[in-house]
Amino acid sequence: MSDKYNPQPGNRFTFGLWTVGNIGRDPFGEPVRKQLTPAEIVYLLGEVGAYGVNFHDNDLIPIDATPAQSAQIKKEFKKALADTGVVVPMATTNLFSDPAFKDGAFTSNDPNVRAYALQKTMNAIDLGVELGASTYVFWGGREGVETDASKDPLEAGKRFREALNFLCSYVKDQGYDLRFALEAKPNEPRGDIYLSTTGAMLGFIETLEHSEMVGVNPEVAHEQMAGLNFLHHVAQAWDMGKLFHIDLNDQAFGRYDQDFRFGAVNLKSAFFLVKFLEDVGYDGSLHFDAHAYRTEDYEGVKDFAIGCMRMYAILKEKAERWHADAEIQALVAAINADDGKTDAFKGAYSADKAAALKSASFDRVAMGARGLPYERLDQLTLELLMGVR
Amino acid sequence: MSDKYNPQPGNRFTFGLWTVGNIGRDPFGEPVRKQLTPAEIVYLLGEVGAYGVNFHDNDLIPIDATPAQSAQIKKEFKKALADTGVVVPMATTNLFSDPAFKDGAFTSNDPNVRAYALQKTMNAIDLGVELGASTYVFWGGREGVETDASKDPLEAGKRFREALNFLCSYVKDQGYDLRFALEAKPNEPRGDIYLSTTGAMLGFIETLEHSEMVGVNPEVAHEQMAGLNFLHHVAQAWDMGKLFHIDLNDQAFGRYDQDFRFGAVNLKSAFFLVKFLEDVGYDGSLHFDAHAYRTEDYEGVKDFAIGCMRMYAILKEKAERWHADAEIQALVAAINADDGKTDAFKGAYSADKAAALKSASFDRVAMGARGLPYERLDQLTLELLMGVR
Amino acid sequence: MSDKYNPQPGNRFTFGLWTVGNIGRDPFGEPVRKQLTPAEIVYLLGEVGAYGVNFHDNDLIPIDATPAQSAQIKKEFKKALADTGVVVPMATTNLFSDPAFKDGAFTSNDPNVRAYALQKTMNAIDLGVELGASTYVFWGGREGVETDASKDPLEAGKRFREALNFLCSYVKDQGYDLRFALEAKPNEPRGDIYLSTTGAMLGFIETLEHSEMVGVNPEVAHEQMAGLNFLHHVAQAWDMGKLFHIDLNDQAFGRYDQDFRFGAVNLKSAFFLVKFLEDVGYDGSLHFDAHAYRTEDYEGVKDFAIGCMRMYAILKEKAERWHADAEIQALVAAINADDGKTDAFKGAYSADKAAALKSASFDRVAMGARGLPYERLDQLTLELLMGVR
Amino acid sequence: MSDKYNPQPGNRFTFGLWTVGNIGRDPFGEPVRKQLTPAEIVYLLGEVGAYGVNFHDNDLIPIDATPAQSAQIKKEFKKALADTGVVVPMATTNLFSDPAFKDGAFTSNDPNVRAYALQKTMNAIDLGVELGASTYVFWGGREGVETDASKDPLEAGKRFREALNFLCSYVKDQGYDLRFALEAKPNEPRGDIYLSTTGAMLGFIETLEHSEMVGVNPEVAHEQMAGLNFLHHVAQAWDMGKLFHIDLNDQAFGRYDQDFRFGAVNLKSAFFLVKFLEDVGYDGSLHFDAHAYRTEDYEGVKDFAIGCMRMYAILKEKAERWHADAEIQALVAAINADDGKTDAFKGAYSADKAAALKSASFDRVAMGARGLPYERLDQLTLELLMGVR
Repeated sequence: MSDKYNPQPGNRFTFGLWTVGNIGRDPFGEPVRKQLTPAEIVYLLGEVGAYGVNFHDNDLIPIDATPAQSAQIKKEFKKALADTGVVVPMATTNLFSDPAFKDGAFTSNDPNVRAYALQKTMNAIDLGVELGASTYVFWGGREGVETDASKDPLEAGKRFREALNFLCSYVKDQGYDLRFALEAKPNEPRGDIYLSTTGAMLGFIETLEHSEMVGVNPEVAHEQMAGLNFLHHVAQAWDMGKLFHIDLNDQAFGRYDQDFRFGAVNLKSAFFLVKFLEDVGYDGSLHFDAHAYRTEDYEGVKDFAIGCMRMYAILKEKAERWHADAEIQALVAAINADDGKTDAFKGAYSADKAAALKSASFDRVAMGARGLPYERLDQLTLELLMGVR
Repeated sequence: MSDKYNPQPGNRFTFGLWTVGNIGRDPFGEPVRKQLTPAEIVYLLGEVGAYGVNFHDNDLIPIDATPAQSAQIKKEFKKALADTGVVVPMATTNLFSDPAFKDGAFTSNDPNVRAYALQKTMNAIDLGVELGASTYVFWGGREGVETDASKDPLEAGKRFREALNFLCSYVKDQGYDLRFALEAKPNEPRGDIYLSTTGAMLGFIETLEHSEMVGVNPEVAHEQMAGLNFLHHVAQAWDMGKLFHIDLNDQAFGRYDQDFRFGAVNLKSAFFLVKFLEDVGYDGSLHFDAHAYRTEDYEGVKDFAIGCMRMYAILKEKAERWHADAEIQALVAAINADDGKTDAFKGAYSADKAAALKSASFDRVAMGARGLPYERLDQLTLELLMGVR
Repeated sequence: MSDKYNPQPGNRFTFGLWTVGNIGRDPFGEPVRKQLTPAEIVYLLGEVGAYGVNFHDNDLIPIDATPAQSAQIKKEFKKALADTGVVVPMATTNLFSDPAFKDGAFTSNDPNVRAYALQKTMNAIDLGVELGASTYVFWGGREGVETDASKDPLEAGKRFREALNFLCSYVKDQGYDLRFALEAKPNEPRGDIYLSTTGAMLGFIETLEHSEMVGVNPEVAHEQMAGLNFLHHVAQAWDMGKLFHIDLNDQAFGRYDQDFRFGAVNLKSAFFLVKFLEDVGYDGSLHFDAHAYRTEDYEGVKDFAIGCMRMYAILKEKAERWHADAEIQALVAAINADDGKTDAFKGAYSADKAAALKSASFDRVAMGARGLPYERLDQLTLELLMGVR
Repeated sequence: MSDKYNPQPGNRFTFGLWTVGNIGRDPFGEPVRKQLTPAEIVYLLGEVGAYGVNFHDNDLIPIDATPAQSAQIKKEFKKALADTGVVVPMATTNLFSDPAFKDGAFTSNDPNVRAYALQKTMNAIDLGVELGASTYVFWGGREGVETDASKDPLEAGKRFREALNFLCSYVKDQGYDLRFALEAKPNEPRGDIYLSTTGAMLGFIETLEHSEMVGVNPEVAHEQMAGLNFLHHVAQAWDMGKLFHIDLNDQAFGRYDQDFRFGAVNLKSAFFLVKFLEDVGYDGSLHFDAHAYRTEDYEGVKDFAIGCMRMYAILKEKAERWHADAEIQALVAAINADDGKTDAFKGAYSADKAAALKSASFDRVAMGARGLPYERLDQLTLELLMGVR
């Protein structure tokens, strides 16, 4: 593969320990790759040119590790970080693997589980901060139901809010420089997961005591599982100042959680997403929350990781070309033309403005008859994306 | 059909003019029923026992009606309301049928269209208030795209916000007693519609100048088109004090907008929805935004309307039985049992509480091993729903 | 739960070892239940009143068992069958769990894998027949791709056909009284699985050398994952004489493979399915290919299994009532009324018939104007299903 | 747009009268383009360089046209064909628009409707043949249900078979050189349509008396509505010798019937489809069953039509490059390598072969450990598709 798309110094590409370290177990199959240690994964990421590595507490420290084991793992992990220059921008808590969380963590019906989840998260926040994380992600993989007979959705929402309020205060009390990013998913592994879309999270955040330190971590695959337009969710989060992190991967609509290589399924959607992130100047992590096909060995895992990063770089270049393409830009200008005739009606309300607008005359038929060249614009965009213009 | 489930005086069941008045045209077929006048629809609704009728401006007054025609229609409509006792709790604007709105109304790239949409909505608000509406719904059926090349999602969001801010001020300036309810839909008739879920609307509302007067109008079919759990969205809206209106109907997941009779597809989901609305004491309109199969004549339309209302009544009775069922309630109590051991960790954060919680000891294995009888509870619920317990 | 719906002697309810024996591991979580031995599962099935138990070769005999281990397991399993009276109507091969099958079994690009899959299946057929199976299911869980770059779909089809032709001949050569039942699934664990629906399988079967011994095993969840009407697929299979087996469970449309308790999601669909199976006199196994929620212990697993069987029994009774309901039957009769006017045009083609039909006169407008009372019929059906008529 | 991808003489690109002639009416909106006459549409198609035009009977001749009107329309249409050189390769019957067909045509519960549908189809076949069609498509848009209470799926299948048997005999009796192509769709405009996928049609065809003259007309959007891999269905049809026609367009999974420009949504899938059609030498019509966005005027409709054809041409060139790319081909060769060790087990069954295979030894662990470079191959394919290699 040609070089200019390979990761360059200064990139912001990150991977979770659980992504390139995924061993290829699925509901119907046994692992196909041996488990690497956290340090080995860091060296792999350094080799492929990634900027950072993120982790769940138990990706790094097993849930039943002794203090001595924990210390040894951290020592090796820190050495690998130092050796490679890879950094830790983000951390999170695993509140979904252990059977204790089978009915949820913060929303569990069992108060002991809720308390344990809070304790586990405080410890995991400490660990993340120790290793340099400035963003802390919450993905509540078990915060849901298989049947609405089993849990009150209102009560669940209150429990989730109480937990987040507590943890925000904990972070502030500790003096940590850390922001929270909430990640939505509609279903899997639960039949239905609460606050199922990025939009729902954006609404929920406004109900928190310290909403200023809480944003979202939208994931391509999670919105696409529900057949939703991911770009629109990212744009809303950006508009609200809440795009604290992003998970890049890919996925066919209406399917199980596939976590494919970024751009592997919906090339056009990936293009518009990269274009948006570059256009608005998003400067946070570009985190690939994906994993290699189960057919791959670790050489294939490297191909996968490089593929994710190359895809972003290629699409970034395509976006630049789109802005530089004269024919495309002429269409964009024509589409957004403003003859100024309605300037008097724009901006903040006033009674006079309303009165003037109510008495204005519009040529509804002419507006409807005007052709908008979106077919042409879309085709030109696709041809640019395919490199034939 | 037995009588006790038929609509009783004091019900809050409402229908849109466009629902029982639907003439059965679809993308592949011509109308199968003749168009009734608005007054005729009101008499039909009175006959079947509905409480209220809602309308888009152009359901009542054609977009090209003369003042004289408009006056005559309103006169006949008001007479029908008076004759039947049917009231108008909600109104809304048609910003999607006319070719002028083919690329959106408030989010159109054409500033003339945006101004015209604002004008049309002010007039429609006046009309709604004149006829008694206290809730005003916004469904932006064309506020979206077929290709993200054609419209900037950030700009679209700003335009939509500006329009709503203007209209909130208009309502306040006029002294109207009117609340806004925003209705989300993921797609159809546009490829993708902005603010695609109720959750996204809840987030968006927080960015408005007069957010206190803006809530949501969730529709069963719209969340189900995206395969999302509707109850969870309704619960979030309720939690935020934003459940201003609700649209009841039904729909298979991942399909075109079917608008079937309430309960016609997902009986279990409909049960949990009705149970929730009754449990929390929702006292707003129960609006059926559905229409009869295209196979029906107007006798069938009445069957359809009665079926919607009966379904609600039957499910309400089922919900009462669920609360009265000793075995079910014993399971619910057991599931939510609290031994009080974690009481010290509940409630607002304090440094001492956090310290105590961090040093507490939890038996993670025991929590995971505990069986939660949700299969049994769900089966009992279904058997109750089927009337065999 | 009341007794008359509990499994009665003579029922045909079967479960796979992998269903009630499911330990609750999923892509995001560790096992929640300890692994039972095959014999223990048989005793559990005997206790809840099931008729039969089905298995994949490796559910019974681990893939790396020694001959001595294998003999011991079979001995214990046969004793459990004898003790409980539980029988083995169906067996199948696990061609998806082992890493060797990560790119498919019969359709793998690796000829060694294809040969090994054939060998493994012959051995598994021998095992199934030894234990009494008369139906042999093929579910090709890995017969697919994540990217169509990796495998030629035509070649894959040829490989699958060659394997089935070989195995049909093997069965005939061995003199086994065994029929094959092919099970379709659209995706998961592969990105796309070949022959993705029951319909595709029905087409494929016609290309086999011994198509007479090959039918289908439709699974509720597999068609519903693709949002398809399961009943229609079952009806087509029945029409073609190919309904050799059936897998009952439930699932929301457009989601990961949920394998919920039969009837747990789509009660109405389950009703029409049971009604159909009873109406046509399907007398094969009623196999529940589902598993208990991960929240359950083994008491919950029994609740789950009993719930599956009770649901079938309850819906069977509902179907009987549907046929006995005078109002419903009057509507059905009216809907299907035939005035005999077109009798001359029915049946096999003849030139005279065609000529007569071409010159006949039809009142198209009257046909379109006729109301068909499907709303009423559907509502009555739902009310019957809810036990309120 | 550059010239070499524009339609060349000898192309096989066809459009329906209903595609470029679509006036942009949808369930929520009024027409945005004026209706062109059939002749005008032919001139438009000639102008953009299409090869052929297809039609439903009532696209050409209104259902209530007088003989004189019909003759005049045909005269003008034939003149346009002669003037432009555009030909008519395919025709079909509109059995879905008129209210008479609201509950189906061949599967209607009303025997008068069934007879009328047969008559209408015979007349439409005559018309198609008169104008040169050699393929006759059946899309049963209303052959389904909203509730399975309303129609017996077995009976519906029998009715559909009886109709097709009759019509096959009619064609043979008339001596027409005409083949039938059945088109599946899962839903819309009916809640569920029978024989919902191309696979189901392939199974059904085998039950017909003259199955040799009946194949399929797969449509991209129809399989994608159900989230299915379209290529796999086309490959199965090709394998069975049944790919008689194809409908090219595009569509997001799990949505309403979008009928977008070919390649507009799923570029990668479109690439593999074109590659397949070119690889196997499919030489039938390349029919674009799509329509322009509702935002377009007739200039935009031409852009749309040209875009469909250019997309095919561009993807065809990409497919050629894929076959010529050394690195890609080396991977393909490696993936499909065969060391010949299993040659003895290939081909037709024999007892000796089975015995030899059963006693062969396979290194299962080595097979599982082998890395398959599919991530790399897929990424290279995407980079080729994007024109950056």
